[in-house]
Amino acid sequence: MAADVAEQPESWARLLEPASLAAIAQVAAVIAERRPRHVVFTARGTSDHAALYAAYLTEIRLGLPAGLASPSAVTVFGARPDLSEALVIGVSQSGGSPDLAEVLRQARATGALTLAVTNAPSSPLTEVAELSVDVTAGHERAVAATKTYTAELLALLLLVEGIRAGDGVLPADERAALDALPELAARTLADPAPPQLASRYRFAAQILTTGRGYAYPTAREAALKLMETSYLPALAFSGADLLHGPLAMTDPDVPVLAVVGAGPGGTAMREVVAKIGARGADLVAIGPSEVDGATARLPVPEVDERYAPMLDILPVQRLALALALARGENPDAPRGLNKVTATL
Amino acid sequence: MAADVAEQPESWARLLEPASLAAIAQVAAVIAERRPRHVVFTARGTSDHAALYAAYLTEIRLGLPAGLASPSAVTVFGARPDLSEALVIGVSQSGGSPDLAEVLRQARATGALTLAVTNAPSSPLTEVAELSVDVTAGHERAVAATKTYTAELLALLLLVEGIRAGDGVLPADERAALDALPELAARTLADPAPPQLASRYRFAAQILTTGRGYAYPTAREAALKLMETSYLPALAFSGADLLHGPLAMTDPDVPVLAVVGAGPGGTAMREVVAKIGARGADLVAIGPSEVDGATARLPVPEVDERYAPMLDILPVQRLALALALARGENPDAPRGLNKVTATL
Repeated sequence: MAADVAEQPESWARLLEPASLAAIAQVAAVIAERRPRHVVFTARGTSDHAALYAAYLTEIRLGLPAGLASPSAVTVFGARPDLSEALVIGVSQSGGSPDLAEVLRQARATGALTLAVTNAPSSPLTEVAELSVDVTAGHERAVAATKTYTAELLALLLLVEGIRAGDGVLPADERAALDALPELAARTLADPAPPQLASRYRFAAQILTTGRGYAYPTAREAALKLMETSYLPALAFSGADLLHGPLAMTDPDVPVLAVVGAGPGGTAMREVVAKIGARGADLVAIGPSEVDGATARLPVPEVDERYAPMLDILPVQRLALALALARGENPDAPRGLNKVTATL
Repeated sequence: MAADVAEQPESWARLLEPASLAAIAQVAAVIAERRPRHVVFTARGTSDHAALYAAYLTEIRLGLPAGLASPSAVTVFGARPDLSEALVIGVSQSGGSPDLAEVLRQARATGALTLAVTNAPSSPLTEVAELSVDVTAGHERAVAATKTYTAELLALLLLVEGIRAGDGVLPADERAALDALPELAARTLADPAPPQLASRYRFAAQILTTGRGYAYPTAREAALKLMETSYLPALAFSGADLLHGPLAMTDPDVPVLAVVGAGPGGTAMREVVAKIGARGADLVAIGPSEVDGATARLPVPEVDERYAPMLDILPVQRLALALALARGENPDAPRGLNKVTATL
């Protein structure tokens, strides 16, 4: 898991090479030309969080309605929604989950434009989809997905911005900003804070994670990573939903991990953090600047809020790894899990 | 909270009276005539779980793509998705959440057909929506939503089946099956099992809830109800997602509450329950029949899986109430919560 985590700058740099960019641009141009009216994502586990990020991007950057489909409606209950005006995107590191392949197969049968985003160019998902994007993360050794997650985020960002451009080719300023990300990732991965924080959570009985907008997928992925490596019950909430009920759970014994970025989502989170802080909770803020009400911080470089999800998850991956080791667990072999999960 | 819970049979019977049915049928007929190409739901907290149920219904019963929108994409990030071919449904017991009203206002501006489903016929949400459905649950006293949740489920079911019928009028056999529900609810609410189970969970440090398809919203709502009344960390997973990571968390110390119904969703859950049982977990099955691998059961009458979410949540509401009292909490006034949550 440590090796997978450390390889992320390299993995992103590979995706930003001309050949990978051209491959994604070509897919983006086909999509732009076909003009889907809405976008449906289908994914599970960690990839579902990448899909959620892409759904925000789709709505905000493309002005297209986007949603996440429940595979079971199709695979278990026989739903056959008319997706003739949709782009249906399956996101999966292995491309091997039979239910996602079935959703894409059915979508394609109703006339949908289908796309597989995977780390496995030859997989059931890419075979069934009309288009495919390879996130080129290389072989992932650990069961807990880390480098495939951020590679999915970056590939989906490149895709959405390519569709926005029309011809798939990113504007020069966007390209320059993206080219800086691998170096920023390397710097973030060298920060001493995450392993130090592991000792703070050594005896925590549970944890809450929260974020809004682009940062909500980070909160979800942070919770999953902590659960699957350290078996720490971790509850993820959007900052808004937290105020609708689960705020009652926050008290000095429940640590909170809050993503507070530099843009509008981060601004909206500051109100949430203040309310949590007022309840005496131990709150760690992931973000580029100090936050009122936070007791500690996992620092990340300041970037456009669209790019932040790639950097924000890095200290959490390292925290999950260090916490698992501190608790005597083996993060490379979480009990009961396999790398490819075959659900129908 | 006990009074709200007890009033559910009466509340459903009110919704099934000719006047309420006619009002919903009229809305359904307008929607059927306008032929939306897809449906977008927007909701928060408990109402989000009712919306999720309705999204499954929409895909399975109407063959229309359905998704849940994140209000923050619109309200925080300024997304303006083109919803001209969509039906956009805001679900909210109070109708008072400013972000949902804003989503509907923006959707209507892009030409969407908009509908407010609320327990508050005069509210900001109903004012901004073109159409509205009153779930007629009556005044809800407790902060934790119970009778408004099941009234939302029933109203959304009546709406979807009315759209399916075209003229809003339900087939006679569907009508008869629905008319039986209040009596089945009364019987379920008289069962002695839920308060007995509270003593079993008195010292639990966390709980997992799970279900698939129509039963997944029940798992989500069960988790929220346990969290907001008893502050018991409760993690909800679809049965499929559970196998993609969180299964690692199940062990003999983590009780699992699994919804195992009589239809295809329940059949798919039996495999999940067997895997959880094999890990030695304490598993309580909510459902009409015995389940291999379960250590206890919260019995509910056997009904069509579409109707089950209304009945399945009843024992959980009573369990949450009893558990809160057993833990010395006040379920009528959860700490830090208000009845109307104003998020932007």
